[in-house]
This record gives sequence, structure tokens and C-alpha cells, in this order.
Amino acid sequence: MKYSIRSARAQDCRDIERMIMELAVYEKMPDQVKISHKELERDGFGPNPFYQCLVAEVPQERSSAEGHTVVGYALYYYTYSTWRGRCIYMEDLYIMPQFRGEGIGKALMASVAKVCREQQCARLQFSVLDWNKPSLEFYLSKGAQDLTDKEGWHFLRFDGEALEKLAQEAP
Amino acid sequence: MKYSIRSARAQDCRDIERMIMELAVYEKMPDQVKISHKELERDGFGPNPFYQCLVAEVPQERSSAEGHTVVGYALYYYTYSTWRGRCIYMEDLYIMPQFRGEGIGKALMASVAKVCREQQCARLQFSVLDWNKPSLEFYLSKGAQDLTDKEGWHFLRFDGEALEKLAQEAP
Repeated sequence: MKYSIRSARAQDCRDIERMIMELAVYEKMPDQVKISHKELERDGFGPNPFYQCLVAEVPQERSSAEGHTVVGYALYYYTYSTWRGRCIYMEDLYIMPQFRGEGIGKALMASVAKVCREQQCARLQFSVLDWNKPSLEFYLSKGAQDLTDKEGWHFLRFDGEALEKLAQEAP
Repeated sequence: MKYSIRSARAQDCRDIERMIMELAVYEKMPDQVKISHKELERDGFGPNPFYQCLVAEVPQERSSAEGHTVVGYALYYYTYSTWRGRCIYMEDLYIMPQFRGEGIGKALMASVAKVCREQQCARLQFSVLDWNKPSLEFYLSKGAQDLTDKEGWHFLRFDGEALEKLAQEAP
């Protein structure tokens, strides 16, 4: 077996933290990461986990130059559609560059889709940067719909001062 | 008091169902709604609720022509950012047309922002259709960032046959 997919354990959080940072560097926003393995452990492995995570692991003999054997992850959580009910949102899907091209990304994503089906979730959703053409093409080739292109959905956010100011206007 | 904001109760689900349909009609996708008050009750008011909801209520003397006093809702759930931790996603924000222009939408949204702050969530996120200019302008005027315009995030989805096919590819 060249790799395996399994549920993440608390002791994987240092690897997940490392790969979150690698992904943020790829997305050109490394300064945005304000989280460490400590928060990841607390938030994902307590009695009411805020997220779920699958990891891809390779055997020791295939470890990276730095000795890593956890080489990819898919982090997701449950959401709710007022049209369709329970859904899954995949926050991150990442494979270390040197392990790409072996189908590990597809296997991770398909494994999240399998959870979707098992948990009777109607949709698997996620976001992609428009300049990330290889990923976009990969997802579209697997049958994903681009709802921003197709229906015009834009993604909005309040944070920082704008969020604080808004909260102060609550009655 | 012209209106009040409160947490939804199970018995509000018929009103929420009615307004979900009104919103879908406004968004020009009424055939997409596959949910009723039964699922809303089961999913929102059990031991592990999949969503949270605030409603706006007017006194009986201000009820709509059809006798409705629950005239708006904000439905949201907790999500997780691998950069910032716990966040809130506001799935729906809706006010019945005849009750617009009194600040009820702003009060509902600000109340969700207040929950965000109380629960130490770093972000309040949501999606808007690009042709829905009044809503977009309202959100931007309150300090929201359009991440699709600003950073190029597109919203993708697998559902139906594409989701099923993907799930079958899981190792």
C-alpha cells in the first residue's frame, strides 16, 4: 500500500498545523494563520468537536526528507442548508507537493464524500481561489458545480473591528 | 416596542418554513426547497442542534394581513477556520417585505454578531447573490468584505449524482 486514509487523532495536530501553514503559503496568505496544534487539539478532539479531519499517511520508507509520514489532510465540518438540511463543508484539502499525482487528493475528497453519504448530507461544499486553476479544473472534472460562476454567489465576511462594531448595534 | 428579537423555539418552525420559502422565491429558486417544519424541528431543537436561529417578532396589533407576527429570521451555525478557529456562518437572513426599512434586518444581523463575540468566534460569514444589489450594498456599508471580489474565492458544490459517484471512488 502506497498510502492510507484514516481519521485524524489528537497526536496528528502538529502535522495538521504544519500542513495548514504550507497550504496558507501556497494560497499566498501565510500571515493569516493564527492557530496552532493546541487549538486544533482542543477544538477537534473534545466532547463536542468543532471539526472532523481525515489524514493521508505513507509508510515510513516513503517519508518526506524531513521524516513526515502524514502527507495530506481533509478538514471538514457539518453545516445546514435551509433548502436541503444537513451538509458538509470541506474547509481544507491539502497534499504535500512531493506526494501529488498519486491520487491521494482524490482519495481524501472521495472519503469525505463517503462520509457525506453515510451521514445523509445532501451536499459537499468548499471554496477555491479563482487563480488556483489546477484545483478548480480538478474539482470541475469530478462533477463539482462552481456556484459563483453559475448562480452568482459571493462570499462575504465580517471580522475584526467591523464585527465588533456590528455586535455593538445589537438591540 | 415595534419588534423584538429572540431565539427561535420549536413551535416557530412553521413560520421559519414559510419564510424559507418566501426567501427562495425572492432568490428565484423556489423549487430548491426540500425541507419542511418537521426537519427543521428535528434538526434545530434536538440534543445536538445542527443550526441556531433568531426570529424577529412584532406585537399582535402589527401582524401581517395573514396574521403572522414572526416576520423575520436569521439562521446560522458554527463553522471552523484553520486560520482563525471557531466562526459563525449565517445561512439565511430574511425580513418579510412589508416589515423592511425599520432596521429589523440590521438588528437580527447585529444580534448574530453579538453571539459571535460572546462565543469568541473570529468571523461572521455568509453568501449573497451578485444581482441582489440592495443586500450587497447593505452588507458592505456595514463593513463586510466581499471575499469573492477581493481575494477571488469561488463557492463549489458536489451534490446528487456527482456526489454519489465521488463517494464510490473512496478507497
